[in-house]
Amino acid sequence: MTHSGSTKVGVLGAGGRVGQAVVEGVRDAADLELVAEIDRDDDLGALVEAGTEVIVDFTAPSAVMDNLEFCIGNGISCVVGTTGFTPERLDQVRTWIADSGHEGVGVLIAPNFAISAVLTMQFAKQAARFFESAEVVEYHHPNKLDAPSGTAIHTAEGIAAARRGADMGDQPDATDQSLDGARGADVDGVKVHAVRMTGMVAHEEVIFGSQGQSLTIRQDSYDRTSFVPGVLVGVRRIHEFPGLTVGLEKYLDL
Amino acid sequence: MTHSGSTKVGVLGAGGRVGQAVVEGVRDAADLELVAEIDRDDDLGALVEAGTEVIVDFTAPSAVMDNLEFCIGNGISCVVGTTGFTPERLDQVRTWIADSGHEGVGVLIAPNFAISAVLTMQFAKQAARFFESAEVVEYHHPNKLDAPSGTAIHTAEGIAAARRGADMGDQPDATDQSLDGARGADVDGVKVHAVRMTGMVAHEEVIFGSQGQSLTIRQDSYDRTSFVPGVLVGVRRIHEFPGLTVGLEKYLDL
Amino acid sequence: MTHSGSTKVGVLGAGGRVGQAVVEGVRDAADLELVAEIDRDDDLGALVEAGTEVIVDFTAPSAVMDNLEFCIGNGISCVVGTTGFTPERLDQVRTWIADSGHEGVGVLIAPNFAISAVLTMQFAKQAARFFESAEVVEYHHPNKLDAPSGTAIHTAEGIAAARRGADMGDQPDATDQSLDGARGADVDGVKVHAVRMTGMVAHEEVIFGSQGQSLTIRQDSYDRTSFVPGVLVGVRRIHEFPGLTVGLEKYLDL
Amino acid sequence: MTHSGSTKVGVLGAGGRVGQAVVEGVRDAADLELVAEIDRDDDLGALVEAGTEVIVDFTAPSAVMDNLEFCIGNGISCVVGTTGFTPERLDQVRTWIADSGHEGVGVLIAPNFAISAVLTMQFAKQAARFFESAEVVEYHHPNKLDAPSGTAIHTAEGIAAARRGADMGDQPDATDQSLDGARGADVDGVKVHAVRMTGMVAHEEVIFGSQGQSLTIRQDSYDRTSFVPGVLVGVRRIHEFPGLTVGLEKYLDL
Repeated sequence: MTHSGSTKVGVLGAGGRVGQAVVEGVRDAADLELVAEIDRDDDLGALVEAGTEVIVDFTAPSAVMDNLEFCIGNGISCVVGTTGFTPERLDQVRTWIADSGHEGVGVLIAPNFAISAVLTMQFAKQAARFFESAEVVEYHHPNKLDAPSGTAIHTAEGIAAARRGADMGDQPDATDQSLDGARGADVDGVKVHAVRMTGMVAHEEVIFGSQGQSLTIRQDSYDRTSFVPGVLVGVRRIHEFPGLTVGLEKYLDL
Repeated sequence: MTHSGSTKVGVLGAGGRVGQAVVEGVRDAADLELVAEIDRDDDLGALVEAGTEVIVDFTAPSAVMDNLEFCIGNGISCVVGTTGFTPERLDQVRTWIADSGHEGVGVLIAPNFAISAVLTMQFAKQAARFFESAEVVEYHHPNKLDAPSGTAIHTAEGIAAARRGADMGDQPDATDQSLDGARGADVDGVKVHAVRMTGMVAHEEVIFGSQGQSLTIRQDSYDRTSFVPGVLVGVRRIHEFPGLTVGLEKYLDL
Repeated sequence: MTHSGSTKVGVLGAGGRVGQAVVEGVRDAADLELVAEIDRDDDLGALVEAGTEVIVDFTAPSAVMDNLEFCIGNGISCVVGTTGFTPERLDQVRTWIADSGHEGVGVLIAPNFAISAVLTMQFAKQAARFFESAEVVEYHHPNKLDAPSGTAIHTAEGIAAARRGADMGDQPDATDQSLDGARGADVDGVKVHAVRMTGMVAHEEVIFGSQGQSLTIRQDSYDRTSFVPGVLVGVRRIHEFPGLTVGLEKYLDL
Repeated sequence: MTHSGSTKVGVLGAGGRVGQAVVEGVRDAADLELVAEIDRDDDLGALVEAGTEVIVDFTAPSAVMDNLEFCIGNGISCVVGTTGFTPERLDQVRTWIADSGHEGVGVLIAPNFAISAVLTMQFAKQAARFFESAEVVEYHHPNKLDAPSGTAIHTAEGIAAARRGADMGDQPDATDQSLDGARGADVDGVKVHAVRMTGMVAHEEVIFGSQGQSLTIRQDSYDRTSFVPGVLVGVRRIHEFPGLTVGLEKYLDL
């Protein structure tokens, strides 16, 4: 696989709304060439015929493992946004890679491809030990079923781990009279607040405070194509990361 | 009482930190003249001798009623930030005014003189019926004892009343899986979230959402002198409002 | 025209993207009945046959006047988001209404139907005289041709007028060493800053400051359907506003 | 110098407002011991007598070099917030350290000790290459003389350098009709906007945008003690950084 020319990309799940956004993103990128659009009933063999170097998979938990086995076996690297990866599934992927004889093949599996969200989480971990106080507020449309969002919980856990690593104690909080729920949900000692608001999409704000100052890191997703730039980073750099990588942050050289 | 020249102002509680901020504010105002600074053990008679037209009272619940009786009896108008006014106390003040023979005397009692906070509450009431969703997030230093703040609760109640007045139903919220407290405290159907953060002072954010848009009204108090401009509005306009007025918003012609 | 049942609504320009959003909005509203969808080559007579009470016009400057003449003549009220209304055109509309013999007919013409934007402008006018400082920051996608946005300029003009009305002088600003453009554009003494940012849609922030505090009013449009709720307010209330009304704010009872 | 017990700290410029904030910060820190407060006319010899291990210098450009020469010569490490360091002065400090015979002595000179500001700058550099658009908005009190602030210019330069390093081209901006100054000041292709607002202290916001999303990093300084936590980080870690270090970011292990 050489990289003098443009990278040949195939999209799996190309018929879905998410897949279409990936298709458009690849088409608009001068250094990428869209060579295959695969939907539910299409033959994966078309990927090989088209000389695909990297596929992007936004399909379904029931389909993704077959897709990965086929692609890895044919030396095609995989950028995967499909959910449902258990530790067992990840082990299976590692085995397929090891057994494939294609030592350069890379698989990137990430729960979140929105770069702004990934950076928010990373910066939050970096900042955590310098501030006495840290809380997370997330904002979503009112059709969301869970509160707080998985991303917000994950962010709070990252902050909590960084605080423990720096031997910081509990956050200061003199509250002794409170309406139920006012102080938010407690995630490992970090308060998380969830706002549900018609019109909003997905937004996360991490706030840190110390003497006389605060630091706020905020991420806004305005529409459902916000994962595309992160997918393109994955496609472009996967040849540098052979083997299995979980999480886009590894690709961001932070 | 004419208003051709500057208004003669007395400050009660002048020895305290809050009182000192009022003293400085009056001194810096070209149209006001500071004629008396009264502290705990000083004789109120000095107010009369100095020709005081308006007093500002930031003293204590145990002292304020005596101060008001004296001032009203002497035809001196009163701008009052001291807390602890029950309906009984307000009735007493009305009686003193009616019995004083000074029909122009005004008393303004307000729980919050920060104009930005008063406007936030007013605008929230005005906006409420145009948006499906409304929530309040307040931010304070971690030494605060109550959560949410009284101002935030009051704001949420105002929003809830405006929604009821417009026959709006419950806010949309599909949450069916939630960590305890994540969705905040429920105040008459309006969610209120309280953040406690070292370095912060007092901040309130009201967020409204409807299709494709949101409206945010945010108030930041950066230091403890933020009540001064509101007090000065009270002092300047009290001659237009004879009798008892509760709440600075009446003075703002909104 | 009685209002015991649902209001019968026709949409002009129903084939366009904006018109389609109106069509969906009317369909989703329990108290409104969509009785006609008119596109470029359709006969306006269908509006009368369907018993239309109110039309919504998002067509083109070249088409809107004929549409209005027809509807007014037939006693159909009009909610109009089409642009290009000169004083002469407004006069023509007034004449048609006066001559129509339908004294209850209403025409609402508004440059902006996003309620959050309309409220931001109104609240900015109300707040202006209480704060020494006021600036406007607007944020749009980078394909926008003008900077600042018309809405931001209009907001700044409203603030400036309110300040003049309250005899406030210039805003405090000690800057004596500045990079070109750092302090923004000057609109009647109010600084306006325009940010252009991939991913953003249309957002406006008005900031006011006085001693120890600030007040921020922020409007976010997340997608291009944000005008729909304002159009529906127009449709629902137009029977209360016979004659010509310019600007949605009149309908908001602020 | 052992670190089993508390570190012995001397404060130079202890009589000034800034120095007093440092004095209080050291006193409140359980792991630090305040052993000397030196003001303008005091003898530096007292530092040696008190066994000072680290001094904090917030004095004046005219005094700081003598202070550094004395402390370095006596093996006392120096945390320096005083301004006015030219390349020549920095070279002089390096020479004094090399010649002192105290190889463990450290000198930390930083233009900004507010950790939230230092992190904002660092995170901005890290994030820059992932976003098509980047702008900076800073907010200060209206008595500030320069616009934009030095910190904002420095932040923009860091973003511009990161963009160049990633071979990113110009930012997208279709503006072709603009009021003078609306689009801000241009710092190496990064737009910077300066707001001046009564009541505010010092605030900086860096905004990044890419498809469907934005990332905002915001720093708020609420009062003039916001540099204290950064100074304490310096004092606590200077024994790990022998020689001259410029900029607090080196101490933050980012």
